Amino acid sequence: MTGAEAAPGVPPGAVPEAGKRADARRNIEAIVEAATRLLAVNPDASVSEIAKVAGVGRVTLYGHFATRAVLVREVADRAIAQTEKALAGVDFDGDPREALGRLLEMTWHLTHRFGALVVAASGVMPPEEMRHAHDQPAERVRLLLERGRARGSFDAGMPIEWQVSVIQAILHGASAAVHRGEITADEAPELVRNTTLAALAG
Amino acid sequence: MTGAEAAPGVPPGAVPEAGKRADARRNIEAIVEAATRLLAVNPDASVSEIAKVAGVGRVTLYGHFATRAVLVREVADRAIAQTEKALAGVDFDGDPREALGRLLEMTWHLTHRFGALVVAASGVMPPEEMRHAHDQPAERVRLLLERGRARGSFDAGMPIEWQVSVIQAILHGASAAVHRGEITADEAPELVRNTTLAALAG
Repeated sequence: MTGAEAAPGVPPGAVPEAGKRADARRNIEAIVEAATRLLAVNPDASVSEIAKVAGVGRVTLYGHFATRAVLVREVADRAIAQTEKALAGVDFDGDPREALGRLLEMTWHLTHRFGALVVAASGVMPPEEMRHAHDQPAERVRLLLERGRARGSFDAGMPIEWQVSVIQAILHGASAAVHRGEITADEAPELVRNTTLAALAG
Repeated sequence: MTGAEAAPGVPPGAVPEAGKRADARRNIEAIVEAATRLLAVNPDASVSEIAKVAGVGRVTLYGHFATRAVLVREVADRAIAQTEKALAGVDFDGDPREALGRLLEMTWHLTHRFGALVVAASGVMPPEEMRHAHDQPAERVRLLLERGRARGSFDAGMPIEWQVSVIQAILHGASAAVHRGEITADEAPELVRNTTLAALAG
């Protein structure tokens, strides 16, 4: 929802240009939001399912996104932009354990929101771009781990690649546990943070 | 390989009944082993791929397994039997952390060997049987966690379901990390044990 509304005082049935543009914007946002939610749990979600959840017809959807691939690409581009923006807002400085804690709480929300999107995106994005989008966050985690290992905040006796894998495994495990109803989405960030910090403790 | 050999002194080309049966047994074992390894990494592996890795023709394969479903079912049944046998050999008594350590090292081998098999099996096994095969090991883990939580060996402040999820996530994460070449299969059991025990520490 963009919060855009039809201009006040316009009689029902008469939709002026500005109102049409606002309608189109609302539809686009609804379609992208529905696609994001459906693709995050099922990378094979169909255009019909997406249109249904968005509350628009297939013709309207295809009016905005000529093919399913164009829509998936738009969803992936927005997910990458949101991820980069969120990560840019994380303070990586200071105590490495506290910094990793902040990063984990943020990353949990991204992992849970975008889930299987990476599977859907791999069908429409060049591998080179996929790798770039994935490597950048992984690189920041690696730098933080290195800094923490050097000062004894994290166990330096384990391979650093293993520690990156553990972080990803716990994040994805938490998302799956929420989908299965074993923990709530509210509990997840703290559980992810405490468990991961304990797992990597120096 | 079953170790069965053609009887000594039999001229080449003349294959007696016992030799034929030994050949058939060897082929069956090779087919099941190939199917186990391929289905563990790709639940959609085809009969042709399985026959190729097993070193037999498609006709030979279909002579032993009338359909792909029959073969997948045989692979799944053996995996379940091996899992139950392995778990029956684990000593669940004594210090809960040491018992969980033993269980993790054993479970790691099963997880890595059988991997995505559960996905392939879900296509040919009734959901009821799938649930039973999965619930039994999970139940033993839960009992061990309960005992350890009661005496402070594991963090009793976290939901027990979450701790079961963490164990599964780390096991599957380790298998994926080995497939990506980030850690070796030899390193994995100890990393899985140490990381999981640290993650669940009371």
